[in-house]
This record gives sequence, structure tokens and C-alpha cells, in this order.
Amino acid sequence: MKKLINAVEDVVKEQLEGMAAAHPDLLKVHFEPNFVYRADAPVQGKVALVSGGGSGHEPMHGGFVGLGMLDGACPGEVFTSPTPDQMYECARTVDGGAGVLFLVKNYTGDVLNFETAAELAHGDGIKVQSILIDDDVAVKDSLYTAGRRGVGTTVLAEKIVGGAAEAGYTLQQCADLCRKVNQYGRSMGMALTSCTVPAAGRPTFELGENEMEIGIGIHGEPGQKRLPLATADEITAMLTNEILDDRPYTRTVREWDNDKGEWVEKELTDEPFQAGDRVIAFVNSMGGTPVSELYAVYRKVKEICDGKGVRIVRNLIGPYITSLEMQGCSITLLKADDEIVRFWDAPVKTPGLRWGV
Amino acid sequence: MKKLINAVEDVVKEQLEGMAAAHPDLLKVHFEPNFVYRADAPVQGKVALVSGGGSGHEPMHGGFVGLGMLDGACPGEVFTSPTPDQMYECARTVDGGAGVLFLVKNYTGDVLNFETAAELAHGDGIKVQSILIDDDVAVKDSLYTAGRRGVGTTVLAEKIVGGAAEAGYTLQQCADLCRKVNQYGRSMGMALTSCTVPAAGRPTFELGENEMEIGIGIHGEPGQKRLPLATADEITAMLTNEILDDRPYTRTVREWDNDKGEWVEKELTDEPFQAGDRVIAFVNSMGGTPVSELYAVYRKVKEICDGKGVRIVRNLIGPYITSLEMQGCSITLLKADDEIVRFWDAPVKTPGLRWGV
Repeated sequence: MKKLINAVEDVVKEQLEGMAAAHPDLLKVHFEPNFVYRADAPVQGKVALVSGGGSGHEPMHGGFVGLGMLDGACPGEVFTSPTPDQMYECARTVDGGAGVLFLVKNYTGDVLNFETAAELAHGDGIKVQSILIDDDVAVKDSLYTAGRRGVGTTVLAEKIVGGAAEAGYTLQQCADLCRKVNQYGRSMGMALTSCTVPAAGRPTFELGENEMEIGIGIHGEPGQKRLPLATADEITAMLTNEILDDRPYTRTVREWDNDKGEWVEKELTDEPFQAGDRVIAFVNSMGGTPVSELYAVYRKVKEICDGKGVRIVRNLIGPYITSLEMQGCSITLLKADDEIVRFWDAPVKTPGLRWGV
Repeated sequence: MKKLINAVEDVVKEQLEGMAAAHPDLLKVHFEPNFVYRADAPVQGKVALVSGGGSGHEPMHGGFVGLGMLDGACPGEVFTSPTPDQMYECARTVDGGAGVLFLVKNYTGDVLNFETAAELAHGDGIKVQSILIDDDVAVKDSLYTAGRRGVGTTVLAEKIVGGAAEAGYTLQQCADLCRKVNQYGRSMGMALTSCTVPAAGRPTFELGENEMEIGIGIHGEPGQKRLPLATADEITAMLTNEILDDRPYTRTVREWDNDKGEWVEKELTDEPFQAGDRVIAFVNSMGGTPVSELYAVYRKVKEICDGKGVRIVRNLIGPYITSLEMQGCSITLLKADDEIVRFWDAPVKTPGLRWGV
């Protein structure tokens, strides 16, 4: 295992110490339970956004804490869900009186623990809502998830809803916007190589020298299919076409009802893309793929979108939701209406994304 | 060879096409000869900054074209110097009448070709100055270089001198500031793994499963020593101490004299760091190392600097001067006076660095 780490059991702690040392103007780190939060939290009167999940996907989520994005982020151990006490303590720390929105990626552990945290926070009188991100078109039901996994749209949702919260959106408005972003976003990823979880000490899976995995998740869980290595254009076409040609997707989600103090089930259907749509295109590195290769991918994404009458109006290209040192990429397309573009363009100042300030 | 590429001979061209497609608001790409330049070039009355070098180090240099940084960047083939006609045509395109500053990393091919380009531009009546970046403390004289190689300080120089040019510095003032930044900056890098140049199709060098290379250059050229794999703290201490304990470094550089129209040799001595210095600390990924590991490294850099009375006042952490998918990191420390901090903080809007706008 070749990594810049010290003792395996200190990996997450030392990364958090590094973040705290590097960005005291932006964020603070609370240890035991571990969470990262805005240096100026709580921001009175602003809805607070809290996300979290296993470590190993940096800069998501801790690197997105700061003005215009998250108020708090709860890191678990590598590829392991954080615990309800992390989420609950984080929510208490960042709540500025306008309530807390949990952005939850669809992995069973994250979902269950954020549900418990929402109930704990509600018991304390904190207004809470919770929106699930489930945007991965590759597989329905996988090793860690019932339904579609939560991947790249999470980054875009944190930016867009973060901008809206900064602009004074209420908790209900933030939740509605976040749900819309999730319904408008679709992603798919692929791996050229595996990654190694420090505690395991060996690659999560084996891929032959001439193989690749299409439709992989961010924990190295199996994808849709294993294929012979293909060109960048072929790979990009596989991912982009699967996203653009996706059918309507219906599932039941659970959201917290603040007034009733109970979980409510909702049936949601995501409509597919169509010609004439404007989109934000996000080409993401799984960690080990350099940005130079992402530009070759973006070039083909744009060509395919142009060919189908889907117009890319904004883009994001780089390593933002990663799987340690895994080589590969993921593509996310997000249908972008005026509200979404407005908050995408809003100022953001975090370690991982920064513009306008 | 596992990469997101199409035909090996199209790698650089397709990356440039991707950049042009992704960032039309920031930059344009000229093909044959290849160079990237600001979308609004030439900026009348502003000194134009031009850099360049082999591809494979992205986002450097093309990703640093835009407001507050470079006006033009000339990419060679992977790990291969660009040619004088690229640099000359780029200079002609971006010159806004206030002259062109070449920022040249110290590699023999780059140095010779930028010298030819300076003479060609001078022949056209363009005012030119050229500053060499040679900040790598690891080795003196290597496979590709006489003297110290140009590495991480290049990124910082492009940002800082870019800010000064935007603020109205003359060509002479920009050159003087750039020379100072180079003399104030020192870097050292290490590799956990090799990288593979597409045209070669196999790793540039072999490193055993329990080996690392200390003092490596950005082309995978041999470093100072090959050692058994060590911890992040041990590796960080090796690099940081070598930088902080460096002795005065004297060498002769050649700079273009605009008035005389000839090359002039200057002897330059860089003074070492001392307690009380303020510095910008730059922890860089060689490409394949994820940002999470860089934070563990930064934590130790800060501890060592604190212990020696060197105060980090700004930092940059991420993949900015890379070697394709190589795993490893480099550390750059730059002594920061008020002028340097002022222009570090100035607005920048490029694909690779963006803040304040």
C-alpha cells in the first residue's frame, strides 16, 4: 500500500488536523465526535446545510464547508458512514435558528444514521429537513444501497442549495430546491484501477491490465459490467448516452415532516433529459486520474450533448467526489433552469470550490 | 497503459480541444503552432505573461491562463519542450504594447527555445524579458537540466507576477518581481509511483512495492535517493527540512537586455530561509495522490515551520504542477514579503485557480 499516511488508525484524524491548520479562516474541526463546520457558525437566521458520509471522497464533504456551500460536514472512517452523534452534534453547532437541511447520499448506513440524527435534533427543537441524493443511473440496488446510489449530483446540490441558503431561502425552500436538483441530476462513473482502503491494506477489487469497470460506485463496489479497456471517446459515449437515454425513474423516499414530527413517504419520478434542455456538465476524476485526461472526456461529452440538442451552460471539471487514488472518471449532467444557474453562479468560498469572493 | 485517451498522437490536441470547449469565457486555443491565450488578448497597455513547457503537468500552464495570471501558455508534447515558433506566435498574439515576460522553467530545451523566441520577438519590435525559475533544491544538474530544475515556484510566480501585471507593473517591474519570487522560493518533491508517458506506453521508471524516490523531478527523472517507503511525517520532514536548511545558492543566469538587444549574464545568489520569515506554503500532488493525503502532509509542514519560527501566512494545497498520474507530492516554500502577499491575494480567474472574481 503506497500512500502518504502515518498509522492507519490516524488517517482521518490527521487529514482533519491538516484541514483545520490550513483553513482557519473558513472552517473549524470538532473532534470526538468528528465534524467540520464553518468558522463563523452558527450564521443567525440562515438555513444551515449539513452533509456527511465516509471519508475517502475528498474534497467532498469537508472541503465544501464555507460561505455559499455547507455549514457542516460529518466524516466517517474511510468508506464508512458517520454516526448519528456526529450529525446531531454538528446540527446543534451550526443551527442559526432557521433550521438544518441534511443532504444525504443514498447509502444504507448514511440514510439510517441521518434519520436517527434528524429525530435527535427534532427532540432538541431544531427544525430539520432531509433530502436524499440518488442520481447514479448505473445500477439499481447494489452492495451498499437499495435504489440508486448518491454520487456526483451531491456536489452540485451542495453548491446550489448553499447559494440559495445564503440568499435567504427558508428551510422548506431549500429542501424543495435540493429535491429538484436531485431529480434533475444523473450520473455514471467508471474505473480504470481500484483503490486501497488504508485499513484493508490491499486493493478493494482486482482489475486486469486490459480491463475497466463501467458503472462503478464511489466505494469501489461492483459496477454494471467489466469490459476490455476502451478509448476515452468510447468510454465517454457509454456514460453520457446512458445518462441522456435514461428512462423516467420512480422510487419512494422518506422525508422528515417538521410539523408532525414523523417520517413521510413520497413517491418521486425523475423525468429524463430531452432536446432543448440546458445542463450543467460535471466531469469528475475518481482521484488518480489527472485533470488533463478529464478535458479529453469533456470534449466528447460536449460533442454528444450538442448532437442531442442538450446545451451545456456551465461545467465543472476536476476531482471533487473521489474514491481515494482510484483512476477513472464520472460524468454528471444536471438539468439547469434559471434558479439553478443563479445559485450555481453565486459566490462560494470553501477549500474545494471558490469563486466570486 | 490505463488512461482516458484516444490515439496517442492526439493526446495533447484533444486536451486542448477540451479546454477550449470548456472555458470559452476565459481562453482560446490556437492550433499549429499550439498555444493557449486569454480570450480578451491582447490586453492593451498590460504586460503580457507567457509561459510554457511540456504537457503532462496540468493544470500548469494552460490552466493558468486568464485574468490575474498568464496571458499565454505554450504546451509541448508530453514532457517535451514546446518549440520557438509556438512561443513567438503566442507572444505576438498577447502583446498589448507593454511587452511580454517569459517565465521559463529551467530545463535545457525550454531555456534554449525561449531564448530563440525572445530573439524572434525582439526582431519584431516586441519588448521581451525572460526570467528563469530554478527552485528545486533536490539536485544540481540532472538528466534534463544544468543547475536546479524549475518546479513548484513556477505556479506561485505565475500567480504573483500575474497580479502585478494586472495592477499596472511595467515589464521591468514584472521581471524584477518574478526574479525575486524565484529567489525566494524553494521546492522538493518525491514519488510513490512512476507515471507513463502515452507515447512510451510503459512506466518511466520502476519503483518496488516498498520503495519511494526522494527528490524526483516532474518528468520522472531520477531523484536524490531511493529509500524504503516511509510514513507521511517522515517524508514531509525530509522534504521540508531540506528546503528550510538549504544553503545560499549561487548560479549565473542569462536575461535578455531589451535596450542592447542581447543576452546578459547575471550572478544570482538566493539566501536561505531564517527564523522570522513569513512564507506561502504550497503542498502539491504529483497527480495521482488525492488531496486527502496532502492535508496530512500540510499538517506536518506547518508543525515543522512553526518549530523553526517560520510563519505560514498563505497556503495552496492540491494538484497544480503534476506529472501525469504519478503518486507523490512536492512541497514549495516561498518567502513572502508585503508585495508578494498583496499580489497572491489579488483576484484570479483561470480554469486552475480562481478567487475574487
